[in-house]
Amino acid sequence: MSTGEPLVVGVDFGTLSGRAVVVRVRDGAELGSAVSPYWHGVVDRVLPKTGRELPPGWALQMPSDYLNVLRTAVPAALEAARADPGDVIGIGTDFTACTMVPTTADGTPLCELPEFEDEPHAYVKLWRHHAAQSQADRINALAAARDERWLARYGGLISAEWEFAKALEVFEEAPHVYDAMRHWVELADWIVWQLCGTYVRNACTAGYKGILQDGRYPSAEFLKELGFESFVDDKLAQPLGALGAKAGGLTARAAEWTGLPEGIAVAVGNVDAHVTAAAVRAVEPGQMVAIMGTSTCHVMNGAELREVPGMCGVVDGGIVAGQWGYEAGQSGVGDIFGWFVEHGVPASYVEEADRAGVSVHDLLTGLAADQEIGEHGLVALDWHSGNRSVLVDHELSGVIVGQTLATRAEDIYRALLEATAFGTQKIIETFGGAGVPVTELIVAGGLVKNELLMQIYADVTNLPLSVAGSAQGPALGSAIHAAVAAGAYPDVPAASAVMGSVRRAVYRPIPENVLAYNELYAEYLNLHDYFGRGGNDVMHRLAARRRAVRKGQSR
Amino acid sequence: MSTGEPLVVGVDFGTLSGRAVVVRVRDGAELGSAVSPYWHGVVDRVLPKTGRELPPGWALQMPSDYLNVLRTAVPAALEAARADPGDVIGIGTDFTACTMVPTTADGTPLCELPEFEDEPHAYVKLWRHHAAQSQADRINALAAARDERWLARYGGLISAEWEFAKALEVFEEAPHVYDAMRHWVELADWIVWQLCGTYVRNACTAGYKGILQDGRYPSAEFLKELGFESFVDDKLAQPLGALGAKAGGLTARAAEWTGLPEGIAVAVGNVDAHVTAAAVRAVEPGQMVAIMGTSTCHVMNGAELREVPGMCGVVDGGIVAGQWGYEAGQSGVGDIFGWFVEHGVPASYVEEADRAGVSVHDLLTGLAADQEIGEHGLVALDWHSGNRSVLVDHELSGVIVGQTLATRAEDIYRALLEATAFGTQKIIETFGGAGVPVTELIVAGGLVKNELLMQIYADVTNLPLSVAGSAQGPALGSAIHAAVAAGAYPDVPAASAVMGSVRRAVYRPIPENVLAYNELYAEYLNLHDYFGRGGNDVMHRLAARRRAVRKGQSR
Repeated sequence: MSTGEPLVVGVDFGTLSGRAVVVRVRDGAELGSAVSPYWHGVVDRVLPKTGRELPPGWALQMPSDYLNVLRTAVPAALEAARADPGDVIGIGTDFTACTMVPTTADGTPLCELPEFEDEPHAYVKLWRHHAAQSQADRINALAAARDERWLARYGGLISAEWEFAKALEVFEEAPHVYDAMRHWVELADWIVWQLCGTYVRNACTAGYKGILQDGRYPSAEFLKELGFESFVDDKLAQPLGALGAKAGGLTARAAEWTGLPEGIAVAVGNVDAHVTAAAVRAVEPGQMVAIMGTSTCHVMNGAELREVPGMCGVVDGGIVAGQWGYEAGQSGVGDIFGWFVEHGVPASYVEEADRAGVSVHDLLTGLAADQEIGEHGLVALDWHSGNRSVLVDHELSGVIVGQTLATRAEDIYRALLEATAFGTQKIIETFGGAGVPVTELIVAGGLVKNELLMQIYADVTNLPLSVAGSAQGPALGSAIHAAVAAGAYPDVPAASAVMGSVRRAVYRPIPENVLAYNELYAEYLNLHDYFGRGGNDVMHRLAARRRAVRKGQSR
Repeated sequence: MSTGEPLVVGVDFGTLSGRAVVVRVRDGAELGSAVSPYWHGVVDRVLPKTGRELPPGWALQMPSDYLNVLRTAVPAALEAARADPGDVIGIGTDFTACTMVPTTADGTPLCELPEFEDEPHAYVKLWRHHAAQSQADRINALAAARDERWLARYGGLISAEWEFAKALEVFEEAPHVYDAMRHWVELADWIVWQLCGTYVRNACTAGYKGILQDGRYPSAEFLKELGFESFVDDKLAQPLGALGAKAGGLTARAAEWTGLPEGIAVAVGNVDAHVTAAAVRAVEPGQMVAIMGTSTCHVMNGAELREVPGMCGVVDGGIVAGQWGYEAGQSGVGDIFGWFVEHGVPASYVEEADRAGVSVHDLLTGLAADQEIGEHGLVALDWHSGNRSVLVDHELSGVIVGQTLATRAEDIYRALLEATAFGTQKIIETFGGAGVPVTELIVAGGLVKNELLMQIYADVTNLPLSVAGSAQGPALGSAIHAAVAAGAYPDVPAASAVMGSVRRAVYRPIPENVLAYNELYAEYLNLHDYFGRGGNDVMHRLAARRRAVRKGQSR
């Protein structure tokens, strides 16, 4: 039943599912939400239609799974909100990135054409598809050799996860797919295309993942030397849309999928991490948002352009139009804790957690919380999944120093929590050193609920730690962008101020803890530079040996 | 029923139990054995009689538990052997070391006097009593400052486990106990005293643990400067007995305990590790015996005196009379594997081992054995219990480098096995570098049964690896000493050649494995020197912080 109150819908497309939320434009109240898991999840072993096996490092998805979210989660969220669809004035979306698909001129994914259904390169390459490292290495080597102006905007390295490396992989390994593709499309934009019928390239992924800087892609000379000459002109270039702008009106087809009114505003696409800044009212310089889940993404606005060593990227309007958006990240955080709980905790803890009716994570957190800082005698490096910032080295690995026969699971668990906090502090320190000071840390994502972890982050960073007010940060952020696209607010900061939600300074640094962690952080830094900056390249040698052995076995 | 065949009895006093074996003098055949656990085990929490709490690091034992072994295990071994006690011509014993007790003039342990039953310092201080570090530090600092001639005989450092540090601890912390004690006695000698009524100090512990070198203890000047003036003259000095010599005849009282004939030869006391050399026929220079259990002890004879950096000690006649006996050690080996299995292996492995009817150790070993060298991508330092040789630093701790989200329990287990092999190789290399080459490695102790571990040791050391022929190395060694003491053989080498037992070169280095391990050992050495030789003193700082926090809590 209509209340006459304007509403917006935000849809967050994650790695394993999509989530829709219905939000009131006036105050950002979340009236209802729903989640749809992707039927095919992450395709990393065999192609679903043909059973073809995928090599290690591959991670694909099925485009139909995304449309299914529009068909199921959006109507379910409307129902949960008891909302009249007629009150909805706009829809916004965010996506994982860099997640790419090759399409025809009308946006049809090549994998949906019968001739390509057995061709892995025709499918969606998920952000964590890691098979294009050799292409990335060549891009980086050439860019460094030519001293390309844009390289410093990415902390000195382009990732194998991004648009150019993944496209070059298609070009080299499946030229027939490359030839058949008209557009190489970020899923953030593809989903908007499906909603409004128009292909608008969002400024965020074009900058962070597509190497668009100062209005230009890498030069024709660079591409020629790379042997990838016509890629930008033929496959990539597309008119840009600013974040919060309207990409178009909802098509009749999409209105039928979603149950929303035809013609309402569809916002330009966005990225899950970046859109969260608006959701937590962190749109001012110095407010760093850490979206903490399996990995952590750090985003922050800055008034000026600075080149921060080892950051993921800095993009004009990459988070909020009119500001420089900075991004950094830690490749392993929650997944390190999860790995340890699954593979390093003895049965007695699992039994105790069962008896107490809590998770093993909660049990270990409780035991770890009883300790004084340094009581476990350990220091760890949080590189089990490599290091994204500031070393940008995926061949680094984990270290733990200080184990004795008295070391117990909760000791290691706490040391791992602390190691990720040190990793964040290293990023914050590097930003500060490059003239982009961080004054507040705002945490969103699944790990927010671990109070011990949050206090450790406050103590290690010596910053007041604010916490997202909504459990669905990205979806709320998308809804905020929908409201702006629909004209309900003049810009994203204005909408964020009203519709965003944050609990300020929930955790404050405790001075004696800050002092104690200063000392442990110094130990972390020593090990960080020793293992990560050439003091001892043992991790690269171990990784190379491991690769060589595995290759030998597979022959 | 008598067979007319002369027999001997060897008794091995371990950390948790005593084991007796009945051996035929003619050929060393082991006819029967029995084990008696110590009723009180290791007393490390409260005094059994009074409930008094012990500080951390303390480890005491009850002397009555040892006598109980004589009363139970010896008769049981005779029975198991179906031996006529009248055929037994001698008894020999070995003990853990350095394990000490303060006694009256007649050998009564002070803890057995009612006035001292609530006094921890009046009890047996087990080898692993670790509360006298500050005393050891002062002894070492003074010896270094005065450039004492004997310091190099101990690799440059006296241990907190040894006679002087433990005695100084009594003197300073319980002067009334110190005043009441007439003798400060190695249990290796105390048990012989109980058997034959005579206090004979064995040449092995006097040298390795008592700082007796070239017939002299530390000088009066040294002791005076230490503030420990009359210790040697008043409490320690005692006539010496060579290994294999007869200390006396079995007393009537001891004959009653054991069921053996009064008057038979009682051999001079010995140490479990050192006595094993005779049991495995490793009495020639270059034959290094590694007794591998919770920790590893390395013993080897040499024709000449050399000063090996970081060895535990070199003693004239310390293993076999007439040769220089070298000792080194690794403070943690089997106990590191045990710690990992208990505290680092998830429930699924325990369940799988249960289903397969094997131990978790066996399961992990089987999985690890399927791997190629370096496949796990890890390298570890085996210092979870400190480093005895060659760094002689009990504040060092464990390290593992190279963990990823794909690391599994068997990977870590194998890396730990390898780390202990690298630790042994470092010792062998250091001996060789000091002019004491190792040409054969003979392994005894509980870990012999792990074939993967044995092959790794052969490959890492690039030495043929021989294996003890008897499962009860020390007890057989003690029996051999009993045969010599009884006059059945002219000396220990002669008795060892006949009664000892070894399987030669059971494991041979595999050339391609040797090459692969050369590279991983180079990684171990890098980390060894970085963490152990001042490159990064993080382990000491972590240990100091840990101690400070714990002290703060106990206040």
